Amino acid sequence: MTNTNAPLSAVSWDEGERALRLLDQRALPAEERFILCHTVEEAAQSIEDMTVRGAPAIGIAAAYGVVLAADAGREAVRSALDRLARTRPTAVNLFAALGRMRRRLDIADGPLLVALLEEARSIHREDVEGNRRLGAFGAKLLPDKAVVLTHCNAGAIATGGHGTALGVLRSAREAGKSIKVYADETRPLFQGARLTAWELNRDGFDVTVIAEGMAGALMRRTKIDAVIVGADRIARNGDTANKIGTYGLSVLAAAHGAPFYVAAPWSTFDLSAASGVDIPIEERSEEEMRLLPDGRRVPDDVRVWNPAFDVTPAENIAAIITERGVFRLPYDFA
Amino acid sequence: MTNTNAPLSAVSWDEGERALRLLDQRALPAEERFILCHTVEEAAQSIEDMTVRGAPAIGIAAAYGVVLAADAGREAVRSALDRLARTRPTAVNLFAALGRMRRRLDIADGPLLVALLEEARSIHREDVEGNRRLGAFGAKLLPDKAVVLTHCNAGAIATGGHGTALGVLRSAREAGKSIKVYADETRPLFQGARLTAWELNRDGFDVTVIAEGMAGALMRRTKIDAVIVGADRIARNGDTANKIGTYGLSVLAAAHGAPFYVAAPWSTFDLSAASGVDIPIEERSEEEMRLLPDGRRVPDDVRVWNPAFDVTPAENIAAIITERGVFRLPYDFA
Repeated sequence: MTNTNAPLSAVSWDEGERALRLLDQRALPAEERFILCHTVEEAAQSIEDMTVRGAPAIGIAAAYGVVLAADAGREAVRSALDRLARTRPTAVNLFAALGRMRRRLDIADGPLLVALLEEARSIHREDVEGNRRLGAFGAKLLPDKAVVLTHCNAGAIATGGHGTALGVLRSAREAGKSIKVYADETRPLFQGARLTAWELNRDGFDVTVIAEGMAGALMRRTKIDAVIVGADRIARNGDTANKIGTYGLSVLAAAHGAPFYVAAPWSTFDLSAASGVDIPIEERSEEEMRLLPDGRRVPDDVRVWNPAFDVTPAENIAAIITERGVFRLPYDFA
Repeated sequence: MTNTNAPLSAVSWDEGERALRLLDQRALPAEERFILCHTVEEAAQSIEDMTVRGAPAIGIAAAYGVVLAADAGREAVRSALDRLARTRPTAVNLFAALGRMRRRLDIADGPLLVALLEEARSIHREDVEGNRRLGAFGAKLLPDKAVVLTHCNAGAIATGGHGTALGVLRSAREAGKSIKVYADETRPLFQGARLTAWELNRDGFDVTVIAEGMAGALMRRTKIDAVIVGADRIARNGDTANKIGTYGLSVLAAAHGAPFYVAAPWSTFDLSAASGVDIPIEERSEEEMRLLPDGRRVPDDVRVWNPAFDVTPAENIAAIITERGVFRLPYDFA
């Protein structure tokens, strides 16, 4: 059960190419391929089309994306900030990262590239350090032999490295705990089946993929010690936006007495949002729902609904695990 | 909103060909094609590979499948009964239909084909009549303008005609009610997205497909007047086996105050099963879970779990709608 693979780096700055280097998560698990973004537009599109996804990873990619405009001057950097802010609406880490890059731009008096790259690297490094700290806090919540259910991918490749929900599992294993993982496949884009299963399997975890509809049957027959998910935006009262399906899982967890945990870095908190109703929810392309295996398709004359996220009310969350510690109800992050 | 299409007949006896005629449900919605089964083995395989599916439709197909052995004599018919009983374990309608065919064989003294075909046609006709009666009972449970969520396909093509859960919706519309339907796409085989959406759309219903993970978010934002599902086997105490994901939906319905209804003909009841623990749950091929859109695949070294059904405990079911009337808690079908 040792990790024989190099740590994943889904988002990085390629010094030689002076480009944003991204693991193409659309191609997983069939292929581990990387792409280089040389322009802001390429970086923005990579966020939109989910080449890079996961709230913290989106923030880091956007920060490096801003760096791509540095050589073209301050106005270009401001345009880059605007363009990158229009990529995806829900993950607040994106706006947190762009806010830091904007403030750095405002105070930079030397070469822009140096200043902006330093800021982007800080955002990246702090994310990994934060994940390790939150992982250590979260690991203590798990029994020595834990069966865990997770949803979507809140792993190393959704962050700067280590992961949030999956970072907790990594830290627990490093602390000597035995972890068995069930991963919701996560319709419509199968981040659980494609990304979480690949990432955990690569690290030697015992992982089993289930469909979302199987989570209830699983909980009835197997004691789940914890449901752990990531987050895309957490409001002041603890209401948490995360991948669609998370809310339903929180209801099932409550019905079966399984503690439901959210693991997220401080950059995921939106203290300007009083509650979940203040969080914008992205609706994505119908096509994502229409594509079925074997080349089959839901016809265009049938309506589909494709919200990318839902909001889990704070009262369904047993604890929110952050790099600043573990918070419990009643949440008040003001 | 009128039905401009001929009624569906997913299962029938082709008199000219002396064969079982099946709508190939694997090809839907891309193609409406029919296949003919001339042998018992072809009929059995069509049940196993889900060319025909839906508990009542399986029972009717198996009954006609037995007829295919009639010309070969009594021993061949007995072998046919045994072979067809080994196709799928959970839907009890299969065993109910085979039991009737066996009893008819035992008492038949004229030409076997005539006797067995008459019995199969009775099973088929009674199913359609039962659906119409249960549909009328169920329709009364819905408000004049109803928003309904359903799971998998419990429609005309899952039965002899009209449908169980969808039969209730058809009967409600015939009674002048306005029905808006949300259909769970139903992983892994997408019976909701492929079959329910196609069947309801063909009949002019307002239908929207969602992923199972969206049901919770839907219930939080939209008042759902009823969740209505079919059943594969109902125990004496009301515990109900149905497509995987049904149980989770019943928990969500309870959390949101939406009445959760099961619609099923009497042939779905297994009075020898005291409760859900007595119902065998089929686990299907891993491959069904591994196939993803765009030719992607969950690798073989990642474990998957693929139970085809789950059991919803009786206490989660507001009413069970049958052709004999509407039953409510506490259920006692002994």
